[in-house]
This record gives sequence, structure tokens and C-alpha cells, in this order.
Amino acid sequence: MTRPAARLDRIAPFRVMEVLARARSLEAQGRSVIHLEIGEPDFPTADGIVQAGVRALAAGRTSYLPALGLDALREAIAASYPAAHRPDPSRIVVTPGASGALLLALGALVNPGDGVLLSDPGYPCNRHFVRLFEGDPRPVPVGPETNYQASAEQLRSRWTDRTVAALVASPANPTGTMVARGEMARIARTVSALGGALVVDEIYHGLTYGIDAESALALGPDIFVVNSFSKYYGMTGWRIGWLVAPAEYVPALERLAQNLYISVNTPAQYAALAAFEPEVKVELERRRGVFRERRDYLVPALCDLGFGVPASPEGAFYVYADCSRFTDDSEAFAREVLTATGVAITPGIDFGEHAARRHVRFSYANTLENLEEAVRRLKAYLEDRPARP
Amino acid sequence: MTRPAARLDRIAPFRVMEVLARARSLEAQGRSVIHLEIGEPDFPTADGIVQAGVRALAAGRTSYLPALGLDALREAIAASYPAAHRPDPSRIVVTPGASGALLLALGALVNPGDGVLLSDPGYPCNRHFVRLFEGDPRPVPVGPETNYQASAEQLRSRWTDRTVAALVASPANPTGTMVARGEMARIARTVSALGGALVVDEIYHGLTYGIDAESALALGPDIFVVNSFSKYYGMTGWRIGWLVAPAEYVPALERLAQNLYISVNTPAQYAALAAFEPEVKVELERRRGVFRERRDYLVPALCDLGFGVPASPEGAFYVYADCSRFTDDSEAFAREVLTATGVAITPGIDFGEHAARRHVRFSYANTLENLEEAVRRLKAYLEDRPARP
Repeated sequence: MTRPAARLDRIAPFRVMEVLARARSLEAQGRSVIHLEIGEPDFPTADGIVQAGVRALAAGRTSYLPALGLDALREAIAASYPAAHRPDPSRIVVTPGASGALLLALGALVNPGDGVLLSDPGYPCNRHFVRLFEGDPRPVPVGPETNYQASAEQLRSRWTDRTVAALVASPANPTGTMVARGEMARIARTVSALGGALVVDEIYHGLTYGIDAESALALGPDIFVVNSFSKYYGMTGWRIGWLVAPAEYVPALERLAQNLYISVNTPAQYAALAAFEPEVKVELERRRGVFRERRDYLVPALCDLGFGVPASPEGAFYVYADCSRFTDDSEAFAREVLTATGVAITPGIDFGEHAARRHVRFSYANTLENLEEAVRRLKAYLEDRPARP
Repeated sequence: MTRPAARLDRIAPFRVMEVLARARSLEAQGRSVIHLEIGEPDFPTADGIVQAGVRALAAGRTSYLPALGLDALREAIAASYPAAHRPDPSRIVVTPGASGALLLALGALVNPGDGVLLSDPGYPCNRHFVRLFEGDPRPVPVGPETNYQASAEQLRSRWTDRTVAALVASPANPTGTMVARGEMARIARTVSALGGALVVDEIYHGLTYGIDAESALALGPDIFVVNSFSKYYGMTGWRIGWLVAPAEYVPALERLAQNLYISVNTPAQYAALAAFEPEVKVELERRRGVFRERRDYLVPALCDLGFGVPASPEGAFYVYADCSRFTDDSEAFAREVLTATGVAITPGIDFGEHAARRHVRFSYANTLENLEEAVRRLKAYLEDRPARP
């Protein structure tokens, strides 16, 4: 066998995939499994978007598009931001999912050995993108005292002369927590004063409950903003997202895009145009209400069971729950819960190192009925199970 | 402005994009332009494939699929190879275009500073993928004496202790030339004996004329084979391809895929299943005949005009023509030809350094009528133009 590149050893598998494989194996044995491990909305793509995709195919829209994306879509994305901080459409890069946006942004920012600050816990792919480019992902351990988000002060104190960027997600996966507006402004000023780049992951914008998320674009033209049609717009399998980049980076990002993926799936780009239509918006807002209802049920129900949810998840569809009352090994606990109850959850280790063994992630991308059934099963199981001494 | 990563300076723009922009600007002024610069089949996706995409959308197939791809598609791709060297479906990785396959293969093989041997001229993205991973693309200058392909002997003589892989494309872009079967076997033995990995780009398989291309899979289980639904199968805008990987690399490639792009566009995967249906095959073979007819017209016509085509293009849809009778600056020549005649062609510089100023690429992804008109215009123009002294 030839020698594989060293980076492969530094890219860990998602534990959630093992959970999913075990869950499917239980299902194959006839067991009822409730999937609360999944990071994907449980709604199909809204009909108005699907029909736009069908029309694009019927019209023969099957050729390459420009690497930066369909102009009409770049304009529609730009127009989706409030007028006060609407970016010029030339700053919008349509990407193959938010994954593609992170690939471009970090490919444009990270030299070998460069440090990138990331909250721990956080979305696992972020650190792997940094490693892909031979950079050094530097976790910032965060907990409920900062709403599970890295503060401006934490970023400042951990910045070194090899740090080039900070990546912030609001709302975040796995915690659903947001960075408050004033704190995001402090973060932007801090990172800028340190000469670094700020990348803000806004892929859960739209899926916030009782609060509207303001884009970091409001804080200046130098911030890289990552977004996606996957979550609020419900287009996961289409693989389409976008990056709003500082204007001076766009020519280099275009070259990267041309070389890395040529262009984004064409029917998906035409379909995404429909995502901004008023009748689609009505359906998406209805779904947002459904997610909110589930969150409002699940968080207190988990607390009643003995889980800790000290920072309120204000967006996305996850609850990052402290399970230290039950275990000091959340990976074993998740396995045990799945086997005993058929409820699939994700161990904290998927999201970093910090307090990972004391946390599990519940996704509420599942029906209220299933959430209620999951809570019933957990209640019966946990009541029989001795608490930790 | 923050500091962009150094790799951006090493990733050149495609000159063909400048040609295309200038061509479009001429068209906007009302000029008639014949596009012979384009690397995309001029046929829309075959109807049977489009209809399968429409059915997938109608059936709500809009969620993520597994990172390695839809099992049924992996099986269909494996079954498309002759029984004698059919790979196990578990070795097939469905990717976002051949671009995604190259990203995975080189990400799995290239450490910083590692050398990868590539023919010059060659597909420009290949060297950029190597640079993306901080590797060192090492061009092997090739000419008509080796059919514009790197020979086993050339690879052996240029191998160093930092070389980890060789990348061979057959048929190749920009030359359309193939590696003969015996030579490919020698290449595979040579690279293996040197302890390196061999990556073979087979994206133009199916588009060979008067000759059938044998997959390098016939030469052993350790070869990385890149292929695509873009060219023969006419699915450019869908962005779907595949990698056949050595079995022991698949788990690492799965982790890379999960992290880099999660999964490939779902409707495209269902649509691609239809690419193997007999009635679609009939249409694809008809198109192959059309491409052959164009090649058989264009190559002698270019020779009559005074271009040199010393190695017969046996596949793809390109002619890499020696224009040294007319110029020693093919980039200026391509610009001049476009302005004077409205015929858009690609300068050699897009494909490397070696003899690039003496070559231009003609694509015959255009109708026979347009090729004939282009030749008429070139004839009138070149006859009036003094030959080089």
C-alpha cells in the first residue's frame, strides 16, 4: 500500500455515523428507533422549490454555470439581506453547500501552520477544514457562562502571532446558542484590531425562535459570512449554500472555485431562486413555528429528566444537554441509551474535547409525537437506572 | 485587508475564461462568435436522464445521501466495467464531479512538499489540486514523440524520493491522445515499483473514436481511477463523477467526503442511475458518432490551414494544434483570431508551460456547420496574414 497523507489521521470520523449505523442495525432487527441524532430537517424541500427544480430540468438547464454562481441567484441572495447592510451581489459566491463556502474561505485564509480559533464544542468539520489546509485549529473551550460561545475577550487572550482567523457560528451546532449583537460587534472589532479575519457561520439563520438573528454583515465589509439553503430553506440534498466575501477576495475565490468544483449543481441554483418567493416563505415560516414548538417541549422535558440545559438554545434544532448526572462517559451513555430505549442521540465527542464526555446532543428534527415518545422511553429507562454515586 | 493564503498566488486563472469574456463582449456588440474554446459537450443531458431527475424530485428525493454515494448507483457504476476487472461496489466513491474525485484522491495522497508527476500540457486543475494540499506539481514535458503522454520511462527518470504519485489522463485534455495499453501497463508497474500511487483520469472514456479505451482498473487494484458523468454521459451541470479507490483507502476517503462536502447532490445521483439504461446508451452512442464525424472533419481541415496536428486525437473533443507557422505567441494569436474572425480558441498557456506558446486548443463541442464556418473564416484570415519569416 502506498503511504496515505498524514492529514487523514487528523480527520476523525463522525461518531454520529456510528450511532446511525447501530440505529439502522437495530431497525433491521425490527426495533423501533427514534432518530434524535440527525442534523437534517425532517421536512422535504418545499414544493415551490421542488417545482422550480423540475421546471429547470424541463427547460434543459443542465450545463455548467459560472463558478461564482448564477447572477440572478447572487442578486436574490444579496436582496434577502436587509437594505441597511445589503451586500453587493458581486460579493456573493454560490457554493456547493456551506461546506463549499468553508472550503473556499479557509482555503483563501489559511497557510500551513496558521492558527484558527474555533469554539469547543463546535461543528466538527470546521476544524477538519483548517487541518485540510495544514492549518492549526485552536479550540476555545466554552460553557454556559458565555452561552457556549467564544467571547471577544477569549479570542483576544488566545490570539498569537500565528493566528489568522476566528470562526464563530450563531446559532451554533451543537448548542443552538447565539452570540448577542453587542458581543458580535466586540468580536468583529477585536479580530479586526488583531489583523485577523472573522468567519461567521450563519447557516441556522431563519431557524431562531422568539428572536431574529442579525447578519454579521451589519458589522462591516471585511467579514466572511457563510450561509446555506440546507437548514431554513430545507434543501440539504441539493448541496447549495453561499459565501459573502470581502470584495477584494472575490477574484481569488473565483479561481479557487473554478479549480475546486467548476460550478455548483445547475438545477439546484434555479430551484434556489424559488426559495425567496412569498408562498415558499409562508411554508418555511410555518416550519419554523413547528421547530419552535418542539424546542419549547423538549428543553423543559429534558430538564425534568435530569439533564442540564443551562444556556437556552435560541436557534437551530439541537439541545446540547449535560448528562453528568447519569454518566461521565457520554459516548458509552449514548450507546447504552440507544440499545436500551431505541432513542438515538449524538455523544459530545463529535463536537470537540471540552466537557465532551459530560454532554450529548439531542436533535429535534423529528415530530413532536416522536419527541414525546423518546422522552417517555428515556424517563422509564433513567428512573430504573441508578444515579451516579 | 487581511493576508490571503499564499496558495492563491500559485493558482492561475483559466485564460479560457478571459477568452470567453472577450467572446461574450463581442457577441454583445452584435458580432457572430463561434465558440471553439469550450470544454463542455454541446448536447443537453439525454432525456432519459433528465426524466429520472424529474422523477426523483417528484418522489421527494431531496435529503442527504451517504457520503460514499447511493448504494444502487455505486453498484451500477461498478457493473459498468467489464466483468474481467469489475471493481467491488465498495470501492466506488460517488463524487461532486471528477473535481471531487481529484480532491479526495490527492487529499488522501499528498503531504506538504510531496511531488506529483503530471504531463505538460495537461488539465490545469490537476496541478492546482496538488498545490491546494501544499504539494509540488512536477510537470513532465511531453510532445508528439510520446503521443503527448508521459511515458513509463519519463516517469521513472523524473521520480525522486519526494515523489508520491503520478497522474495520467487518457484520453487527455487538451490533446485528445491516449496512452496505449502496453504503455499504461508499464506505467502502472513502474509507479508501483517506485512505491508511488497512480491516479488515472478516465473522464473521456466513452468518447474515443475507432478505438475503445480500457480502464486502468484492468491493471490492478491499487490504481486510483477518476471518472465523471459530465462528458460521455453529458451531465456537466449536475456535478457528479466517481472515484474507484484501492479498498484500503475507502474508510479515509469516506471521512474526507463527510467533512469536505457531506454528500453529492441527491437528484443527480438518482438521475445518473438512468445513464446506464439501454435507451440512453443508444443516444449517447449516437452522440459519440457525431463527435467522431466532427473530429474527422476538423483535424485534416486544420492541417490544410497550416496548423500541425502530429499526434492523432483519439478521444475527448479537442485538437491541440501547433500554430508555430503563424506565431510564437499563441495567447496573442488566439486574441487576434477572435477579434479578426470571431472564432474563439484557447491558448496553450492554460495547459502548462511546455511549448505552450506554440499551441492552441480547438474544441469540437460545436456543430459541424459551425466548425466548417470557423475553418472558412480562419482560411480567409490566415491567407491574408503573412506567414512568420
